[in-house]
Amino acid sequence: MTRKMHFGLFLLGTGSHIAGWRVPGAVNTFEDIEAVRRIAATAERGLFDLIFMGDNLNADPAAHPSYTARLEPLTLLSAIAGATTHIGLGGTVSTTYSDPYTVARAFASLDHISGGRAVWNAVTTAAPAAAANFGTLHPDHSKRYEIAGEFLDVVKGLWDCWADDAIVANRETGLYIDPAKVKALDHEGEFFKVKGPLNISRAPQGHPIISQAGGSEPGQQLAARTADIVFAVVQDMAEAQAGYKSLKDRLPAFGRRPEDVTVLPGVMPVVGRTAQEAREKLAELMRFVDAKNALGMLSERFGTDMSAYDLDGPIPDLPEADTYKSFTGVMLAKAKREGGTLRDVYNMVAAARGHWVLVGSAEEVADTLQLWFESGAADGFNVMPPYFPGAFDDFVDLVIPILQQRGLFRTEYEGPTLRHLLGLERPANPNF
Amino acid sequence: MTRKMHFGLFLLGTGSHIAGWRVPGAVNTFEDIEAVRRIAATAERGLFDLIFMGDNLNADPAAHPSYTARLEPLTLLSAIAGATTHIGLGGTVSTTYSDPYTVARAFASLDHISGGRAVWNAVTTAAPAAAANFGTLHPDHSKRYEIAGEFLDVVKGLWDCWADDAIVANRETGLYIDPAKVKALDHEGEFFKVKGPLNISRAPQGHPIISQAGGSEPGQQLAARTADIVFAVVQDMAEAQAGYKSLKDRLPAFGRRPEDVTVLPGVMPVVGRTAQEAREKLAELMRFVDAKNALGMLSERFGTDMSAYDLDGPIPDLPEADTYKSFTGVMLAKAKREGGTLRDVYNMVAAARGHWVLVGSAEEVADTLQLWFESGAADGFNVMPPYFPGAFDDFVDLVIPILQQRGLFRTEYEGPTLRHLLGLERPANPNF
Repeated sequence: MTRKMHFGLFLLGTGSHIAGWRVPGAVNTFEDIEAVRRIAATAERGLFDLIFMGDNLNADPAAHPSYTARLEPLTLLSAIAGATTHIGLGGTVSTTYSDPYTVARAFASLDHISGGRAVWNAVTTAAPAAAANFGTLHPDHSKRYEIAGEFLDVVKGLWDCWADDAIVANRETGLYIDPAKVKALDHEGEFFKVKGPLNISRAPQGHPIISQAGGSEPGQQLAARTADIVFAVVQDMAEAQAGYKSLKDRLPAFGRRPEDVTVLPGVMPVVGRTAQEAREKLAELMRFVDAKNALGMLSERFGTDMSAYDLDGPIPDLPEADTYKSFTGVMLAKAKREGGTLRDVYNMVAAARGHWVLVGSAEEVADTLQLWFESGAADGFNVMPPYFPGAFDDFVDLVIPILQQRGLFRTEYEGPTLRHLLGLERPANPNF
Repeated sequence: MTRKMHFGLFLLGTGSHIAGWRVPGAVNTFEDIEAVRRIAATAERGLFDLIFMGDNLNADPAAHPSYTARLEPLTLLSAIAGATTHIGLGGTVSTTYSDPYTVARAFASLDHISGGRAVWNAVTTAAPAAAANFGTLHPDHSKRYEIAGEFLDVVKGLWDCWADDAIVANRETGLYIDPAKVKALDHEGEFFKVKGPLNISRAPQGHPIISQAGGSEPGQQLAARTADIVFAVVQDMAEAQAGYKSLKDRLPAFGRRPEDVTVLPGVMPVVGRTAQEAREKLAELMRFVDAKNALGMLSERFGTDMSAYDLDGPIPDLPEADTYKSFTGVMLAKAKREGGTLRDVYNMVAAARGHWVLVGSAEEVADTLQLWFESGAADGFNVMPPYFPGAFDDFVDLVIPILQQRGLFRTEYEGPTLRHLLGLERPANPNF
């Protein structure tokens, strides 16, 4: 079988561009579930592999309108499960501010509800402000990843407490559950003590799919050991190739094959019928950016008060950030490399929060995606439309058909579960 | 306006009767969302006020098949939101094993998703086994209620962090959120420290509806102070009247009126076209009960090892239970009063987990419900069908029309939000 691209749709509230909601005709809230359902239908029309909800655990008006007012991922994804049939449903939930029993259960439930389409995007939560909403202190970066590793082990262990055939439901004998087919977990680790078993049967996918986005060293190690999908933050192809290789090279040490992890760099496509039209669309978007909260937004991303710095001066030497390590590293490197200013960094953040912006005609965009896909830079892409629905419609209606004509993308769903779309085996249960 | 009854549908997995799933044609799992959607549609056809999901935080095969394998409430309710239009969606979430920020956010999200139909059934979690899944110790009864009181205050406070008109989304000026219309909570209490604001705007209902079921003294005090709906466990009308009066009498001390709280005793209706047919249906149900796990089930309910006792001997003097205080008190009192045995208690638990079982023709059932409603025993009922769909269809198709003919129940939804159905005002926001 020819290798095919995979596509995720990144659902960040009003769109990835900070001012996308200002475009005439754009959706200007993501608290409207009908708008989300229509977008999900478009993603499924485009035969996307998954929809993926970002998340934050604090309100932060300086960062992005959607960080402050948006629907909670698990309720949102459950609500669109019934309005979709094949697409994966990915939700961000933090390993720092949740309980593994609750998380294991919720994603198993979503997997049952959706017929095998649940994705847990496991994050450690970068923003320290979350801690104040949970009455605790924000663990440092390396501690967060230690917690995350054990958290993931507990969740996967809970997903294996039930044999696939544990529910007997024999009306004659009255046996509902075969007690020999349900086992406790009895986990006692450094951070968690969880007895189990889980109070829901094994999920249709065995394990719901795990996605991650950590680009730091511990983030990559964790992803190599535990993730099925990795989202990457990149600004150019060489960077993407290096990240792709770095991740794939780590897999054998964990007994895994390159094809076991799907690497999806994030891309904000701005697609026009011509290259000129695409550039005009981006210019219109940037016109809506309000510079007055620029330093506040940079402060949030960098975890450092940026108000002392000149937006139009050279890039200062900043202390290493404990938050958004990969985002800040990628953005600062690019700006320094190109002799840019803090304003350039801000514009990158405002446009796509540090992700790659790809502007061009549909042919040009398809060419570039193909080049990356065939150059060891990507297994597909996490599409981050600047606004909805127009910018996403453009991608689905103009770019996807070109990729299909070139044999690079599916023309129908392989279904029924997301594992079928990703070409991943259903994991065996080591307990039974 | 004439006072009307209110109806909740209690969704306990395969049905409230422990062996209801064995009835030919009965739904025998609640991990099948399509079955739940069909039941929700029936409840809405019957113009019910709400569907209400019970919950446990541990797997317990001895107790009830549904305690061990069922969908998680918030994902389930979100999944049926799109398949329903008016009915309230009630989910049980524990104040002992959750974070208030997470809970406030999830129910606000469900309220947005459902257009104002979210209900949080706040419980303190009776079963000590839950603690082992969360790496902690189970707080005692009074401590659980202290925590619950503060938890509810925090959640309601978070729901008031946003003015109703905080989202401006002005495309011209670029102002998305009016910062003067969003306030932090800055809660610092005995158990929780929560800064806020919440990262979702104010819910369509202002506050989602709060339901509770605690029958103990602290449970009743908490309900009188914070609940909109109270579910009651009763076995006869005198008990129901006493509980109803006790709760309503507590309201003025909290500045509330009797009509601010809807009291719904639980009832398992077994309805026949004739009284004889109804009795035969109950006999068939009880024939399916498997006595061999009786003592295990009683042990779970009473929080005491019951294996030393004779199922057919007199009711022993038991130490006061720390779990399910109102359930055990009601059941033991009834059995002692009637000279019953532990087996009788078990049968009550097996049939309806201690709730009232009402057997009769549709006319008889309607008569009894009317009598309770008009005798200060109930504002309506929480209907707990022994199995689905048949036993629930009987109630909707045979009993509801009689109550409508008598002018005791609505003939169309008052909508659009659950507050309209319950006749409750949308709470003002004290912060703005």
